[in-house]
Amino acid sequence: MNGDVVVALDVGGTGIKCALVRPDGATVHTERHPTAAARGPAAVVDTILDVAEGLAGKARADGLTPVALGVAVPGIVDEARGVAVWSANVGFRNVPLRDLAVARLGLPATLGHDVRAGGIAEARLGAGRGAGHVLFVAIGTGIAAAHVVDGSASLGAHGAAGEFGHILVRPGGPRCGCGRLGCLEAVASASAVGRRYEELAGTPATAAQVGERAAAGEPVAAQVWRETVEALADGFATAQALFDVATIVVGGGLAQAGAQLLDPLRAALHERMTFHREPRLVAAALGDEAGCLGAALLALDAHRGVPTTLEAP
Amino acid sequence: MNGDVVVALDVGGTGIKCALVRPDGATVHTERHPTAAARGPAAVVDTILDVAEGLAGKARADGLTPVALGVAVPGIVDEARGVAVWSANVGFRNVPLRDLAVARLGLPATLGHDVRAGGIAEARLGAGRGAGHVLFVAIGTGIAAAHVVDGSASLGAHGAAGEFGHILVRPGGPRCGCGRLGCLEAVASASAVGRRYEELAGTPATAAQVGERAAAGEPVAAQVWRETVEALADGFATAQALFDVATIVVGGGLAQAGAQLLDPLRAALHERMTFHREPRLVAAALGDEAGCLGAALLALDAHRGVPTTLEAP
Repeated sequence: MNGDVVVALDVGGTGIKCALVRPDGATVHTERHPTAAARGPAAVVDTILDVAEGLAGKARADGLTPVALGVAVPGIVDEARGVAVWSANVGFRNVPLRDLAVARLGLPATLGHDVRAGGIAEARLGAGRGAGHVLFVAIGTGIAAAHVVDGSASLGAHGAAGEFGHILVRPGGPRCGCGRLGCLEAVASASAVGRRYEELAGTPATAAQVGERAAAGEPVAAQVWRETVEALADGFATAQALFDVATIVVGGGLAQAGAQLLDPLRAALHERMTFHREPRLVAAALGDEAGCLGAALLALDAHRGVPTTLEAP
Repeated sequence: MNGDVVVALDVGGTGIKCALVRPDGATVHTERHPTAAARGPAAVVDTILDVAEGLAGKARADGLTPVALGVAVPGIVDEARGVAVWSANVGFRNVPLRDLAVARLGLPATLGHDVRAGGIAEARLGAGRGAGHVLFVAIGTGIAAAHVVDGSASLGAHGAAGEFGHILVRPGGPRCGCGRLGCLEAVASASAVGRRYEELAGTPATAAQVGERAAAGEPVAAQVWRETVEALADGFATAQALFDVATIVVGGGLAQAGAQLLDPLRAALHERMTFHREPRLVAAALGDEAGCLGAALLALDAHRGVPTTLEAP
């Protein structure tokens, strides 16, 4: 219908990104709200439902028809049952968020995983468009990935697929938050870059600062940046051996370093390709709106018929 | 129909395993022929077509109706185009095997990848039955895997998915046949086990012998076996982080060591599971007939309607 929109929410550790999205993929309204996770998961769930209800009301007030709700959350998500199983930074433990939303809003609702939602959006509408086989990698405080084939993300048997941050790249290396030594996330996430710099230079710095100093020729920063690129390239080569994708889309905070990260990473990945078909390595195109757009796509998919328009607008 | 069969061939470096398989999965006839790869790829193609034609003739002579042909081959396989793109041990270079078979036999034909075919068979009919999400790992001269979800194997963008032997587990480790250092295959394949033992003990041994000597308490053999198990467990943990499967099925020559490999491997994998959902780790059930049965399944899938019977016999 002409006035149809979906209500989309991307719930993060600090903020909730919201949008009203039309079936053709156009965003007609956006909002941001604080998650305020310190209040505990029950309060966060209330906020999510309040915000979603408010957006549906706003749509109606503007003469639009909200037809479905899509919510993306971090952590372990059982998309089939619509349950937020576990999340470190929001505190969810087995929250049946989809059914709660359906009860509150009276609309069909879909629950998705934030990185998988972002991957779907980048694969269909962003930097991976037209590639068919895409690996979307988000490098921020942590590292996670979504393997997207023909517009759909792999979920795994328990909704836990894509934990790219926890593949082994440096046996005996730095301890990861998960408890193991040498996970990719423990070596090459934005937080790991900051930690490693402080360890070597004796003064703290953010990953962005390390990147800038490396570009300016500071030796310690250059070393940390090189180590980061090498570890990421090792991880990407392992992923390519297993997935054989056409395009790797790099997003998340660290990707904001742009060519300074992507150029040496592309070169290091190229060196590691032997029998492999080399994937295109590109920066994400949708920025921090990917997760929210992906939540809208999941809702539209569930609402049926509509996504075909979106996949080839 | 009651007398319908598919003709199935699994082409390996040394032998061609063949079968006539009914739509319900029952094998009614088997044959084995030498590949004789030294004669060159053109001669191997002739043999494949002769053998397939002979099997179709045998079926008709027995009052059966051959309805389709399935052929599994090693290397890089473009299943969509039916082309054997590249194979180290058979010598294929862009052989349009499917179309050649259709022309010779006058039957619909399907070309598949040997490990993916084996994985499909194990997932539908063998040790992974009922699991939904299965990783089939074949450990022999090399190491390769098939990620099978709901009975279908991931192909990748270029037919090269599942190269589990070439994930990085030991940076700076032994050189792999692919040219890189520290690939899983360079550390934990049957050939790598033999090489490592000879390096440490000064006398050659097969992987099977190393396994037996380790069980008998020979220190060098025990060390090599332990290193192998640790490397495989690291690889399986990386795969589980990415795929989140319900079951890992271990096949190939090294898996014939049975509990002597699987028991310590299961324990080592268990140690490495932090946030992961732990997969079941089981031995393959179909032995060296998995590839041939998988070729039959691919042919039946293409022949349509029939595989439903097979998936739930």
